[in-house]
Amino acid sequence: MDNRPIGVFDSGLGGLTAVREILNIMPQENVVYFGDTGRVPYGTRSRETILKYAAQDMAFLRSKDVKLVIAACGTVSSVAGALGDALPVPYTGVVRPTALASCLATRNGKIGVIGTTATIRSGSYRRAIHALDKHLSVFEQDCPLFVPLVENDFYHPDNPVPRLVAERYLAPLKQAGVDTLIMGCTHYPLLRETIQQVMGPQVVLIDSGRETAACAMELLRKENALCESGETGRCSFFVSDSTEGFSKAASLFLDRDVTDNVSYIDIVEFAEAHAKTTESEA
Amino acid sequence: MDNRPIGVFDSGLGGLTAVREILNIMPQENVVYFGDTGRVPYGTRSRETILKYAAQDMAFLRSKDVKLVIAACGTVSSVAGALGDALPVPYTGVVRPTALASCLATRNGKIGVIGTTATIRSGSYRRAIHALDKHLSVFEQDCPLFVPLVENDFYHPDNPVPRLVAERYLAPLKQAGVDTLIMGCTHYPLLRETIQQVMGPQVVLIDSGRETAACAMELLRKENALCESGETGRCSFFVSDSTEGFSKAASLFLDRDVTDNVSYIDIVEFAEAHAKTTESEA
Repeated sequence: MDNRPIGVFDSGLGGLTAVREILNIMPQENVVYFGDTGRVPYGTRSRETILKYAAQDMAFLRSKDVKLVIAACGTVSSVAGALGDALPVPYTGVVRPTALASCLATRNGKIGVIGTTATIRSGSYRRAIHALDKHLSVFEQDCPLFVPLVENDFYHPDNPVPRLVAERYLAPLKQAGVDTLIMGCTHYPLLRETIQQVMGPQVVLIDSGRETAACAMELLRKENALCESGETGRCSFFVSDSTEGFSKAASLFLDRDVTDNVSYIDIVEFAEAHAKTTESEA
Repeated sequence: MDNRPIGVFDSGLGGLTAVREILNIMPQENVVYFGDTGRVPYGTRSRETILKYAAQDMAFLRSKDVKLVIAACGTVSSVAGALGDALPVPYTGVVRPTALASCLATRNGKIGVIGTTATIRSGSYRRAIHALDKHLSVFEQDCPLFVPLVENDFYHPDNPVPRLVAERYLAPLKQAGVDTLIMGCTHYPLLRETIQQVMGPQVVLIDSGRETAACAMELLRKENALCESGETGRCSFFVSDSTEGFSKAASLFLDRDVTDNVSYIDIVEFAEAHAKTTESEA
């Protein structure tokens, strides 16, 4: 038994879909969430920048004494796996559990992957799938407009804009005949209905947030570290830009009002202070 | 005569539309451009964050010994006017010259303004217009998807996606009967044809990049500080993330290959070093 919180971070809001799944399957767990809204989006940035930011985000969560770190961000998971594995607490990104679920779901051996440009460019889902089964075919497509569409309220299934954009992005994957599609970005579940309509009902959609929450539960169970307080857990949210905008969006993503639990953190200042402490300890 | 460069900064790529206009009307000028691609976009960030970033960007340009600073970014111009006016060199944002042009263009006294959420929320165009003529009516609309659409190649006039998005955003301005529309973001000229189609041919579109370049020329002329080398000027570009992505996009915006003139600058590190120097000088 371990009642310390689970730490979750993302470049912004998207990781909240993983938090929602955690609360669904492990309602007793405490969660500390860091959304790097002051530096969002990570998806368009260089590998070096993403690594630097991810290290700072992980250090911040560790300062909150978390028992498990989740990189609930396709971009970070794709680039910073080694960084997470080096942590002294269990770690999971979204890539490995999601790749595993897709291998179990495919019937014809053709898996599609959609994500931000950085996620797709990293080839991380392809590598994770091939590490499990090198005979599977993987077809990848970046969908850089999906995140802005979701964040600007263009995601309802009856809106023609996301549908037209999805038709353009998904055409090569339909052409390739994939029967399983990884939604490799935590925003994409909000476009699930549109994506399913465009791909057709026979294609299985794999939700990275859901698979990651299930993996986290399994890791905690193995370490006998599930929370057993018997009460509903507390969620604390930290963001690196305005708390107001985040609270509004988070309430939508999580379907509950979280305004009182959102705090601002200057992540650059935190990282500088942390670097100094680490230096003087070394 | 003053052969020092003109300094231009923006949160990313958009300011290049102002650079293009500068090169058109003052081809002999040298230009130093800083695009804060490591922290783009500014438009969704809080006022405090934008002010902090703008101060750092201006300090960087000043370190390049510029004779004039242009904030070629609607968001910064809307928020950081006082910061620019306090500089020891002439300064212009995009708001004041653009507001003036709209006042001269309107016939029915109804002016529309479109921009990022931060620009519209700041009310800066409305205030600048009312400072010139308080009897004019101003109708404002934020268009948060326009920048991602442009940056992801969804801006061609025959693409239905930007047209549908523009129809949704511009409907209230058409309804209000504006005869003049300020494109209050440097990305929007790439959507000019779509915006003109949606608004109708009788509406005058005001291009903030063009008006700002004209204003810069006027400021330099007044100070007798135009470059008179007789040769075509040099452009140097600095960015705070990958130079590769920038070079590709910049070549599109400027219609010339600029790859050899693009350098990386760690703006956070620069700002820290600069703050230390300023402290020790004080």
